[in-house]
Amino acid sequence: MAQHKFVNTPPEVSPMPMKPEMTEIWEPEVKIVTAAKISGNAPSDAMILFDGKNLDQWVSKKDTNKPAAWKIVPGDYMEVVPGSGDIQTKMVFGDCQLHLEWSTPDEVVDGGQARGNSGVFFQNRYELQILDSYNNRTYRNGQAGSIYKDHAPLVNAVKSPLEWNVYDVIYTAPRFKADGRIDAPARITVFLNGVLIQNNATINGLTLYTGLHNYPSSHGDDVISLQDHGTKNQFRNIWIRKL
Amino acid sequence: MAQHKFVNTPPEVSPMPMKPEMTEIWEPEVKIVTAAKISGNAPSDAMILFDGKNLDQWVSKKDTNKPAAWKIVPGDYMEVVPGSGDIQTKMVFGDCQLHLEWSTPDEVVDGGQARGNSGVFFQNRYELQILDSYNNRTYRNGQAGSIYKDHAPLVNAVKSPLEWNVYDVIYTAPRFKADGRIDAPARITVFLNGVLIQNNATINGLTLYTGLHNYPSSHGDDVISLQDHGTKNQFRNIWIRKL
Amino acid sequence: MAQHKFVNTPPEVSPMPMKPEMTEIWEPEVKIVTAAKISGNAPSDAMILFDGKNLDQWVSKKDTNKPAAWKIVPGDYMEVVPGSGDIQTKMVFGDCQLHLEWSTPDEVVDGGQARGNSGVFFQNRYELQILDSYNNRTYRNGQAGSIYKDHAPLVNAVKSPLEWNVYDVIYTAPRFKADGRIDAPARITVFLNGVLIQNNATINGLTLYTGLHNYPSSHGDDVISLQDHGTKNQFRNIWIRKL
Amino acid sequence: MAQHKFVNTPPEVSPMPMKPEMTEIWEPEVKIVTAAKISGNAPSDAMILFDGKNLDQWVSKKDTNKPAAWKIVPGDYMEVVPGSGDIQTKMVFGDCQLHLEWSTPDEVVDGGQARGNSGVFFQNRYELQILDSYNNRTYRNGQAGSIYKDHAPLVNAVKSPLEWNVYDVIYTAPRFKADGRIDAPARITVFLNGVLIQNNATINGLTLYTGLHNYPSSHGDDVISLQDHGTKNQFRNIWIRKL
Repeated sequence: MAQHKFVNTPPEVSPMPMKPEMTEIWEPEVKIVTAAKISGNAPSDAMILFDGKNLDQWVSKKDTNKPAAWKIVPGDYMEVVPGSGDIQTKMVFGDCQLHLEWSTPDEVVDGGQARGNSGVFFQNRYELQILDSYNNRTYRNGQAGSIYKDHAPLVNAVKSPLEWNVYDVIYTAPRFKADGRIDAPARITVFLNGVLIQNNATINGLTLYTGLHNYPSSHGDDVISLQDHGTKNQFRNIWIRKL
Repeated sequence: MAQHKFVNTPPEVSPMPMKPEMTEIWEPEVKIVTAAKISGNAPSDAMILFDGKNLDQWVSKKDTNKPAAWKIVPGDYMEVVPGSGDIQTKMVFGDCQLHLEWSTPDEVVDGGQARGNSGVFFQNRYELQILDSYNNRTYRNGQAGSIYKDHAPLVNAVKSPLEWNVYDVIYTAPRFKADGRIDAPARITVFLNGVLIQNNATINGLTLYTGLHNYPSSHGDDVISLQDHGTKNQFRNIWIRKL
Repeated sequence: MAQHKFVNTPPEVSPMPMKPEMTEIWEPEVKIVTAAKISGNAPSDAMILFDGKNLDQWVSKKDTNKPAAWKIVPGDYMEVVPGSGDIQTKMVFGDCQLHLEWSTPDEVVDGGQARGNSGVFFQNRYELQILDSYNNRTYRNGQAGSIYKDHAPLVNAVKSPLEWNVYDVIYTAPRFKADGRIDAPARITVFLNGVLIQNNATINGLTLYTGLHNYPSSHGDDVISLQDHGTKNQFRNIWIRKL
Repeated sequence: MAQHKFVNTPPEVSPMPMKPEMTEIWEPEVKIVTAAKISGNAPSDAMILFDGKNLDQWVSKKDTNKPAAWKIVPGDYMEVVPGSGDIQTKMVFGDCQLHLEWSTPDEVVDGGQARGNSGVFFQNRYELQILDSYNNRTYRNGQAGSIYKDHAPLVNAVKSPLEWNVYDVIYTAPRFKADGRIDAPARITVFLNGVLIQNNATINGLTLYTGLHNYPSSHGDDVISLQDHGTKNQFRNIWIRKL
């Protein structure tokens, strides 16, 4: 679409100069969110998934009609009860910012994948690995901070089992076409204890233990689940913002 | 998720070697499409939008209950009837491969944007410019092959007004979030007469004549329209494949 | 950076309206390329890699001091001499538009990967598969038009062994960081006989026969090579444009 | 490249099943970084740009042979000396993770862009805006957390002038082709006080006060600069990690 004009020699100045106000966008006003007074705490628009009081936001993954059977140390943290199974949120999520603190068992037993293993599954499918990777070598794409068997973390910034670790995650869900084919893969950015360990990494599909990773056919928002992998991992201060 | 094992020294060979068949994917079988015998003609899965016979696939944009009022030279081409208005397809499209041949008026009058101006609008909104850009300087982001006032073509491969030009286009529609915000901008790849002129270029919004380009709120598949800009441009051999 | 002003109420119209000329970009002028008169032929800025006359632009891959040992049918095509080995261009390329026509042996023998197998290697590393995939099932990520063992083609648009096939390719080389790590993977768009079969697909690394595909450490522009896989495939009309 | 075989019927299971160890990558071992004991403090591989002691890592932008002329409140923060000019790092950076704390003047004077205005310029060119946006409306693409006149922040999470704000930034520098043309635009992710405000946003060019934003021709790593915009903004705890 263009105006009728009969000039075909370039103007002396191109493009014609603007005024500063022509690139000022005022509407819509940006929404206010009140940040927490204390670093790491939930801002005003976050949904609290766990604040040390109860597991009201969680159910058992095996039987979603049953409560989450993990242990609570009131006012402090929850702990995996080995054998009780994974737990998952009641609510479903797609794109989100997630804050989650975790710790591995103080008593160090076993090694490799058997030491302090758990995981956070976005949309119940894509695992951000939790492991005691402090002085515990394993395959790089399976250590703490890896997208399991997909992307190793950029660095290993995990703390000792006596300390708490902090995940700050930006998760972008995969997009699917109307016919179910994958349209854009999921992506993830992760800070572990304030250190960038995944930088908008592409997630190449289901984070399977065996075989090539591919996307299933279309799925929508889904729960976040935490893994019972047989070790007494601990979690606290979990909050989420929908993006 | 990971197997219990108690090794934390790296294996001698990592990863464990595969067999070739482990990376052979057989299913689903790739669908067969029969290519045209003659280069530029429609393959078996294309929808024919214009083959020189009639304007049955088109209507008037001003009044979509009325037929497209452009002239037909039967068995050959259609021609803009200046003043009759834009025309648009009856069917709607999103992602697509489009083949379209066009020519500008043999009699060269005026210059700049006034010479042989028309355009193809994807989803009735995003314009791939048509112009007689043969020996006719104008602004680079407004010449033939530009995404109007967004991306100039990589090169000027336009033919003279006495010849036909060919557009082969891969158009990827913008994606929107459920709340209407833009999620991924549209992209476009264009060959003009077999020469690459747009290489997966990002379309930054509505291709407006005046002001900054931005995306409107969410829209779905929409018609392809051709512009009546007051000059007797011609079109032939138009076909499309949904992607 | 921003002007001092003391207003903090929004203006009535935002942003301030522009004039159309403010979004017209005139410089630099877009370079002219003369398209071929005949569809499929080389435009004015292309480098001719093979026009039926000789193999002057090619050498043996095994010994780059030796000429390419494939057969020429003068004025028409070149043909793989099985056992003579791969051939490669003398010049190196990165991002490019490649046009190449190929045909598989008229006499159909064997099946699967043994029938009319060859390939085009971009930067001597990333293979676009050539195969007689006409009535010849094989694994989808190994048939004609696949990025070998990486991406299956969107559709199978291959012609019979008695006909010529045409590849029109846009190849974007991988980018590496200064320290050798991969920064952006290679991407490829392919038309086979005018039908889109790869749509800006990501190439996930070396197109290996066995095992996971990954990127090697940094490499620069490199030759294009054609594969001798033991069958008498034919090639003609090969030209390339640096992008 | 593919093995000779004569089967062209699909196998019963495709692809052939793997063992879990085939997708375990052990080498190279992921580098260890020791995270700070206190949230927000520098990890072991960070470079400290300012820790309250001195301005040794900074110089005047106007005359890079002169020291940075801003005021230090020892052991605490630095403060803009209005009229002394911008300051910049001695070292140059490209891709990086930056942590920076800032505060606007306690005494609130003026409004809009005149209240507590400063900015962080990545590669001395691309501005992340600093402004007292607490109860101070201005254009959305010019408020605190905006990429100046390019991207408004997702939300307004700024604190009052009596508090400190924290920026945690992942900056990806623009890539240029060998001939100087832009190859991939810069991108930026920003958390303000722990709240995501820029999500891998594309930076569309120089963040100019007037006119359209475009990329200059090629440039390499460059300094980070802080703006003197005439108000007594304060900065503390600045550290950076090269990515």
